[in-house]
Amino acid sequence: MKDKVKEQLRDRGVELQDIADIVHTLQIAYYPDLLMSTCLDAIDAVLEKREVQYAVLTGIALDMAAEQGNLPEPILGTVQIDEPLYGVDEILAMAITNIYGTIGITSFGYLDKMKIGIIGTLDSSKEQVNTFLDDLVAAIASASAAKIAHAKETGLV
Amino acid sequence: MKDKVKEQLRDRGVELQDIADIVHTLQIAYYPDLLMSTCLDAIDAVLEKREVQYAVLTGIALDMAAEQGNLPEPILGTVQIDEPLYGVDEILAMAITNIYGTIGITSFGYLDKMKIGIIGTLDSSKEQVNTFLDDLVAAIASASAAKIAHAKETGLV
Amino acid sequence: MKDKVKEQLRDRGVELQDIADIVHTLQIAYYPDLLMSTCLDAIDAVLEKREVQYAVLTGIALDMAAEQGNLPEPILGTVQIDEPLYGVDEILAMAITNIYGTIGITSFGYLDKMKIGIIGTLDSSKEQVNTFLDDLVAAIASASAAKIAHAKETGLV
Amino acid sequence: MKDKVKEQLRDRGVELQDIADIVHTLQIAYYPDLLMSTCLDAIDAVLEKREVQYAVLTGIALDMAAEQGNLPEPILGTVQIDEPLYGVDEILAMAITNIYGTIGITSFGYLDKMKIGIIGTLDSSKEQVNTFLDDLVAAIASASAAKIAHAKETGLV
Ligand SMILES: [Ca+2]
Ligand SMILES: [Ca+2]
Ligand SMILES: [Ca+2]
Ligand SMILES: [Ca+2]
Repeated sequence: MKDKVKEQLRDRGVELQDIADIVHTLQIAYYPDLLMSTCLDAIDAVLEKREVQYAVLTGIALDMAAEQGNLPEPILGTVQIDEPLYGVDEILAMAITNIYGTIGITSFGYLDKMKIGIIGTLDSSKEQVNTFLDDLVAAIASASAAKIAHAKETGLV
Repeated sequence: MKDKVKEQLRDRGVELQDIADIVHTLQIAYYPDLLMSTCLDAIDAVLEKREVQYAVLTGIALDMAAEQGNLPEPILGTVQIDEPLYGVDEILAMAITNIYGTIGITSFGYLDKMKIGIIGTLDSSKEQVNTFLDDLVAAIASASAAKIAHAKETGLV
Repeated sequence: MKDKVKEQLRDRGVELQDIADIVHTLQIAYYPDLLMSTCLDAIDAVLEKREVQYAVLTGIALDMAAEQGNLPEPILGTVQIDEPLYGVDEILAMAITNIYGTIGITSFGYLDKMKIGIIGTLDSSKEQVNTFLDDLVAAIASASAAKIAHAKETGLV
Repeated sequence: MKDKVKEQLRDRGVELQDIADIVHTLQIAYYPDLLMSTCLDAIDAVLEKREVQYAVLTGIALDMAAEQGNLPEPILGTVQIDEPLYGVDEILAMAITNIYGTIGITSFGYLDKMKIGIIGTLDSSKEQVNTFLDDLVAAIASASAAKIAHAKETGLV
């Protein structure tokens, strides 16, 4: 199922390298010798988790259904325009962020607000509905950063 | 939007009275003079919340899309058979339960396990996909029970 | 730190075997060949997680501080009598339950309501304040059960 | 109990006006005519919630116990130095943020990272342990901002 998740991310315009760039930006201040390959490994470990896979696949399915008009109203319009009070995207994202503990929440909120890297690109896309995808990418990046922090602090990396 | 939520619940086979029965069952041991109308009022207050409305509408939309084969694989099969490790339904449900604080979590888990009342009916339905709906109903009942507990303990009812 | 957690659990009256008994009770219906040693291994893996260790140590510290009168009012009395609306114990517990995804939430709520095994003993103790400990034990058991379900379903055990 | 919460916030160096400044900074870009009094009213409504009151009182009690050396090791040292992997402060904060739905999470993470206003002052204090307090203030501000957004979007303000 992990391959399916990577494939669907790519189909929606997200390369793992795009996420690794964000993770590197988040953590380089704390670990100046952080390698890009460590970021990619962390993302791979996050995408290994079943809970993460299901959240990503469900979110992308909702984005695509909204794009194709395949949802009943009023949820169709809500997802299509990413209505400000709609928080189900953040709910799914937090299920990912929580996998490595709550320290990932801080990065998630920061990324969601600052729209760094690919997150900004997704957010301003006019070709796709990315209501869920931008939050999912921010969540995968935050969980990966949390995993690196855990490994570094407990001496495993 | 609240009317739309009530309408979609009814269309999927859930009457507010069914939920009130569960709330009454949950709380009668603590408040022997609990009226059914108090349960219905609490449910109405819960359904007033935007976060609850969005969670319910999104979950029902996913159940219906799965029913109609309108989701990409592998998430389609996952939702159709309510795969044991799939937890996105619980994630949406917890967003409802948390509205009145974490005391609702206990009732939610209990209801989800014991499949009381309409929850059991939904769970064993062979005509509809109810992967999300059973958890949503358990969550609405738990949040309503939490609301009643808050009102009783703080002397508002 | 893991040894410290086990030591403090034991000091407060909880043996790992007590938790394993609960995990076994939860999962035997799904996996009839489930060994007690598998349950103990799962608990060990859960207690390896830093997030779990911190939640347990913080909760036990609050129970002990309440016992010794070492908290300011009104939180002292609130923790001492496990006030019905106090939900911080459930909040800490959910941080544990979420480590293996939201499927653990159902068992947690069930255990918290049914007070199975050592959870019931803790809940009715008159010698100790166990406001946090009963929920922490229910959470460790639920997370361990979720870990077993993940391993079984993905073919790792 | 609300008066006790306000009193303890003030005793630890946090005025409601400090929190209102943060809320105003967060929301002025979206609602240019936002009054400071609307921010103060929203904070007041947030502090009315029992779940919020308990989270704040518990967090402050832990900060004070750590300050006075009144916790067992190793949690004492962990809270005193605000160890990077310690996430119980974020857990308590999220219980507050979730009260008005998950849209508050984004602001919370942003505030926690950028240390805006009083949050920065608390974070760099050398006189007090503020491991919990900085996150609690960020959470109250985020929940208040979410409340304002709900009121504005649903036409209630
Ligand atoms: Ca979004
Ligand atoms: Ca379900
Ligand atoms: Ca308890
Ligand atoms: Ca902190």
